[in-house]
Amino acid sequence: MAVRRRPAAAAAGDLPPQAPPADAAPTPAPDELVLRPPNLRVAAVAAVLFLAPFSYLSFVRYRLGADLQRSILKCGAMSLIGFCVALKLIPVAASYHLRRRMFGYDINKKGLPTGQIKVPEALGLVVGIIYLVIAIIFQQFHYAPDSIWLVEYNAALASVCFMILLGFVDDVLDVPWRVKLALPTFAALPLLMAYAGGTSIIIPKPLTPYVGLTVLELGLFYKLFMLLLAVFCTNSINIHAGLNGLEVGQTIVISAAVLIHNVMRIASSTDIETQQAHEFSIYLVLPFLTISLALLAFNWYPSIVFVGDTYTYFAGMALAVIGILGHFSETLLLFFLPQVLNFLCSVPQLFHFVPCPRHRLPRFDPETGLLTGTKDGNLVNIFLRLFGKCSEKALCIRLLIFQALCCVFCFWLRYMLTGWYK
Amino acid sequence: MAVRRRPAAAAAGDLPPQAPPADAAPTPAPDELVLRPPNLRVAAVAAVLFLAPFSYLSFVRYRLGADLQRSILKCGAMSLIGFCVALKLIPVAASYHLRRRMFGYDINKKGLPTGQIKVPEALGLVVGIIYLVIAIIFQQFHYAPDSIWLVEYNAALASVCFMILLGFVDDVLDVPWRVKLALPTFAALPLLMAYAGGTSIIIPKPLTPYVGLTVLELGLFYKLFMLLLAVFCTNSINIHAGLNGLEVGQTIVISAAVLIHNVMRIASSTDIETQQAHEFSIYLVLPFLTISLALLAFNWYPSIVFVGDTYTYFAGMALAVIGILGHFSETLLLFFLPQVLNFLCSVPQLFHFVPCPRHRLPRFDPETGLLTGTKDGNLVNIFLRLFGKCSEKALCIRLLIFQALCCVFCFWLRYMLTGWYK
Repeated sequence: MAVRRRPAAAAAGDLPPQAPPADAAPTPAPDELVLRPPNLRVAAVAAVLFLAPFSYLSFVRYRLGADLQRSILKCGAMSLIGFCVALKLIPVAASYHLRRRMFGYDINKKGLPTGQIKVPEALGLVVGIIYLVIAIIFQQFHYAPDSIWLVEYNAALASVCFMILLGFVDDVLDVPWRVKLALPTFAALPLLMAYAGGTSIIIPKPLTPYVGLTVLELGLFYKLFMLLLAVFCTNSINIHAGLNGLEVGQTIVISAAVLIHNVMRIASSTDIETQQAHEFSIYLVLPFLTISLALLAFNWYPSIVFVGDTYTYFAGMALAVIGILGHFSETLLLFFLPQVLNFLCSVPQLFHFVPCPRHRLPRFDPETGLLTGTKDGNLVNIFLRLFGKCSEKALCIRLLIFQALCCVFCFWLRYMLTGWYK
Repeated sequence: MAVRRRPAAAAAGDLPPQAPPADAAPTPAPDELVLRPPNLRVAAVAAVLFLAPFSYLSFVRYRLGADLQRSILKCGAMSLIGFCVALKLIPVAASYHLRRRMFGYDINKKGLPTGQIKVPEALGLVVGIIYLVIAIIFQQFHYAPDSIWLVEYNAALASVCFMILLGFVDDVLDVPWRVKLALPTFAALPLLMAYAGGTSIIIPKPLTPYVGLTVLELGLFYKLFMLLLAVFCTNSINIHAGLNGLEVGQTIVISAAVLIHNVMRIASSTDIETQQAHEFSIYLVLPFLTISLALLAFNWYPSIVFVGDTYTYFAGMALAVIGILGHFSETLLLFFLPQVLNFLCSVPQLFHFVPCPRHRLPRFDPETGLLTGTKDGNLVNIFLRLFGKCSEKALCIRLLIFQALCCVFCFWLRYMLTGWYK
């Protein structure tokens, strides 16, 4: 009923970067788009790899309490429904995105026919919205309206939703870089405002003689730390990107690690509040991981859809929120080790100490189909320089294995140092 | 850092509906867009008209408590900052929207040179985001982290934010009509889940002998009523549209009425919870009204920007949330009387009992500059048929006066019936 007439959505002049030869078959109009089917095998393999350890720990190894198990099953069932809905909706949304010219060309396939396909962009939107709906409905089943957890739960929802909104705005409008950096600050506000947990840190035992304290009350500085963590998580996932499946893959690995950490802490802790915090985390991570698997089925090499800043921002904020409200932000930072390294390598270019091109991607050779590392400072290129040329898919898998190894290292470190360090 | 190369944003083929003659001066590229300055006079007049009664009642007539007055002043100061930021940001965002082809042509000016101007669309996004930021920061100044109001406050934020997201998605992707209707259902969920207020209604006194009860406990049905209210508010503002300034104008009138109602109830009530509920409402409505004034300065006839479904959804959900959490949803419905009438007139076309064209706007005569009512069933056309042809601006003013009269009628009805009815 609006007072406007839309300009034709798919205008003429939508040529791929390198126009096809005149005698080529005409490409179908975007409206007739038929996406290739999603790669369900990858989703299934990833589901087994990343959900099996959590299920084993919850139901076999530690035999969590019956109430908690029931809640996890409820949450899991809702997540599964979300997974199916996402599989169904992503192709529908993809055709809408194409029609509104929200697409990109895959730079890592430039020179190949597949490099001329319009890949719909910003499909993280679909999983973000489904995630919100699952998280909201789960609330009804689990938290009484007077639960103290509900303040934080709703604050978490508000933060994640705000971040999805800003991410989608960024995808649609291409916000300038300096504004981009500030967006998570706004989105994190509801969370910071609602945070009612402790604001003190425990001084590591070896340092207590020097500091003269066992617990340091940080007050407002703790909130500043949380804000920086949220800004870091969102931006660091956003810049550790550029390969098919890498954005979604890394968040799936981190989520799986978070789930395992939660279960182990619930089993090993006797403090009821710690247990509740980790339960809270499970209910937020499990649906996040599951719907990300649906996105992975479309985004795995060769990508049928791109996830967009909508997804990377959404994922970063969701994980930050979960780490903060679950009271394990230090551990979360260890899970983010590759992102920390990638960020550190990127600093000289991001802050323009050395020149920074528009994209810092490897060079693709259409003859061999292999990627070669450039001198740009990020993990993608460093891996190529260290371990030699390889295909995009192989590189993505190597980076995901590195992510998983960092999580394993974090577990080792945490459980080796317990008692001695804290 | 994404793996994509954007197609050129402003492609060739962006011709206005009626191509200008070949010898016409070339239109400037969207990047060079210079918007006409906003109509600050209208914003100032509206501010006086709609904020003066509230200020008079709060600070002169009823002399609300000093604490409450201080809070209102704080909220007002933040709203004023929001107003200035919105005035600054709307033109910036407008150029981004144009670049991403989010624009429309003003149908009510078809045939005139102004009908060929690309008017940037969906600028409700800017005020929506600013509103969220103000509402979140205000929280910090006002509510302690353990306040019971914080659950509902955060739920309200989550609902409004979710609605802005879905509205913007609708503006960008042009969601089908049946999906559109369902969107507020999702967005209202956080609110329904968090609602901890009463779920009973007081039976009007004249009916108690027949019902046999003075209070009827509705339980889940009350939540259903709230859901329907949220769906109704969002959609009814969305379909009472089509004239420059009407969407923003109607919500400003309703907000002013809500503010007056809040103050009167705080002054007349002795129940502390009722007072708190209406205070809560003030803190959410005041910034909403103020930033809407900034949008009005751009959207008033002749519109420099269109507000989009982003704004109508945002406004509808914000008002619904405020009415529900402030516990005055029945009164709110009376403020919505023109929207109710417009909805009832629209039912035959909306549900396709009679044919429904794409737009149900009046006919514009470029010779005289006047609008003539068509047979389509909505208030815009009915007003033209009843009171004769007039200009777009005059019609908008007439409709806004009608909205204000309905609010006055509601006050009269409420205060006449108090005691007898309830």
